[in-house]
Amino acid sequence: MTDDDGKHFITGAAGFIGSTLADALLRTGRQVVGYDNLSTGRERFLIQALVDPNFTLIRGDVLDAFSLTAAMRGCSTVWHLAANADVRFGLRHPRRDLEQNAIATANVLEAMRVNGVRDILFSSTGSIYGEAAVIPTPEDAPFPAQTSLYGASKLAGEGLISAYCQGFGFRGVVFRFVSMLGERYTHGHVFDFVRHLLREPERLPVLGDGNQRKSYLYVGDCVKAMLRVRAKMPEVFQVYNLGADAYCTVKDSIGWIGGRMGLAPKLEFSGGERGWIGDSPFIYLDTKKIRALGWDNQLTIRQGVESTVDWLLANSWIFGERP
Amino acid sequence: MTDDDGKHFITGAAGFIGSTLADALLRTGRQVVGYDNLSTGRERFLIQALVDPNFTLIRGDVLDAFSLTAAMRGCSTVWHLAANADVRFGLRHPRRDLEQNAIATANVLEAMRVNGVRDILFSSTGSIYGEAAVIPTPEDAPFPAQTSLYGASKLAGEGLISAYCQGFGFRGVVFRFVSMLGERYTHGHVFDFVRHLLREPERLPVLGDGNQRKSYLYVGDCVKAMLRVRAKMPEVFQVYNLGADAYCTVKDSIGWIGGRMGLAPKLEFSGGERGWIGDSPFIYLDTKKIRALGWDNQLTIRQGVESTVDWLLANSWIFGERP
Repeated sequence: MTDDDGKHFITGAAGFIGSTLADALLRTGRQVVGYDNLSTGRERFLIQALVDPNFTLIRGDVLDAFSLTAAMRGCSTVWHLAANADVRFGLRHPRRDLEQNAIATANVLEAMRVNGVRDILFSSTGSIYGEAAVIPTPEDAPFPAQTSLYGASKLAGEGLISAYCQGFGFRGVVFRFVSMLGERYTHGHVFDFVRHLLREPERLPVLGDGNQRKSYLYVGDCVKAMLRVRAKMPEVFQVYNLGADAYCTVKDSIGWIGGRMGLAPKLEFSGGERGWIGDSPFIYLDTKKIRALGWDNQLTIRQGVESTVDWLLANSWIFGERP
Repeated sequence: MTDDDGKHFITGAAGFIGSTLADALLRTGRQVVGYDNLSTGRERFLIQALVDPNFTLIRGDVLDAFSLTAAMRGCSTVWHLAANADVRFGLRHPRRDLEQNAIATANVLEAMRVNGVRDILFSSTGSIYGEAAVIPTPEDAPFPAQTSLYGASKLAGEGLISAYCQGFGFRGVVFRFVSMLGERYTHGHVFDFVRHLLREPERLPVLGDGNQRKSYLYVGDCVKAMLRVRAKMPEVFQVYNLGADAYCTVKDSIGWIGGRMGLAPKLEFSGGERGWIGDSPFIYLDTKKIRALGWDNQLTIRQGVESTVDWLLANSWIFGERP
């Protein structure tokens, strides 16, 4: 064990980022308890972890206070990554974001209090900056209005964590992510495009006009940043933007995807500036604060997109598994 | 009727601000449905309203989605004022703020959607600015960290409202209040001080060092500002700070209270900068935005404190009614 910081508890451990984090923690010899209801997480992402004696997977729901509290016993750090992670469908299920992101976070905090766990690191989102007045957007940007239920519910989670840090002596970190890419990526536009092109290689319908700018981060770089912050936990509470110092357009990414797949589909744009209601046309975060800790992203956005395409092509079971 | 804007629905209608707003709306001939579970609201505050044929009081809880939805039928404006309004006890009941302020707001929004009601005005708080980096604090201050569960839960409510405005075509207003004073004031330090001095006129225990600065607004001025904003509803969503362009210290207010009561108690300070964990030492809001609508407060802070003392002395039943 390189760092005796006790047992790590990961909610959403079978998810895209959660499973990558679990593997990274296990590689350094740490003990990890994964907690996941497997509603969107995949046990298959934990193939490596599950053969590691330092790993335990507990199937449970963050809305089940009793199961959550019992599962967390003996842990000393909580990575709260379980979430309703798809910003696009908030309006179809207005309650889901509140439950999965805000109430679930309240449950995690109470479970920590009951178990005497002090340290929490939370995956929030650049979506909470709404229509950002400042781009690249720093952590202390002007107080934004929320444009999605996803952002609103993540902001609620952030606020609860901060209040627990102030009120109960917790130490908390909020990561505001841009979109992530890389191995085990399971939703978002690169996923949708690859899936579509596997079925229908000649044409590709694209929401919006394709000029939406997107700043992606490679999941491996993301996890490295998270571990770096964990090694320097703040006394009380800090927010870190996590993103790349670059962006691409949706069209750029389509070019890279097509290149990787050896395809040149006809693009059919639905038109308009935005892909969906509540979509922010441009999330581009100022990452000076995390870079000041010595972190830098290793993969460019293009490399991130390409590694994602490679992984999706090598793991096409992911498309067939669920509708 | 001076303005045909349909029936007004007030959650927390039996509360301090809710009942004052109900009276003001009824004075202009509007129809008002008051919704209150009477847990902290007082039916006695609605003595005038209850004899008005344009007023209906429905006893119900904002957490009861069915009752709330039924009660709102036929209304066209929602004033969502029901809340757990006491910032001080959040840590004793960590779930209460989330339920009363965030989940309740989600319920109000869903009840509106079901009933086809578009307009919502919401009572939030200057507490959400936490340890404000800019004082006086404008609506677009740097993104703050939350210092209380109360603030965090109100921020969650704000975010949900904003997201509904963006996603469902609602029109929303968030009012961020300083502390209010005036007739029907039922909690806070002026209340506590008057109650204590009625029992024990010679001495007064004071939390903190008495130098905490407080910016109060008179409830009558607050309601006038709210009605002015209602008359100019934004197309989508706006935030307005509501406060006075002045402040006093807790010691100042004690002097005014003592003067009004003809007492000069010995002050016993508990010491320290803050009254309680999560108390913000100074909430002083920039109110240029609301003033640009032509509103100004009529009563000074001193007049607000004195009117409160007069009302409390004339209504001492309020001290006996509940512990």
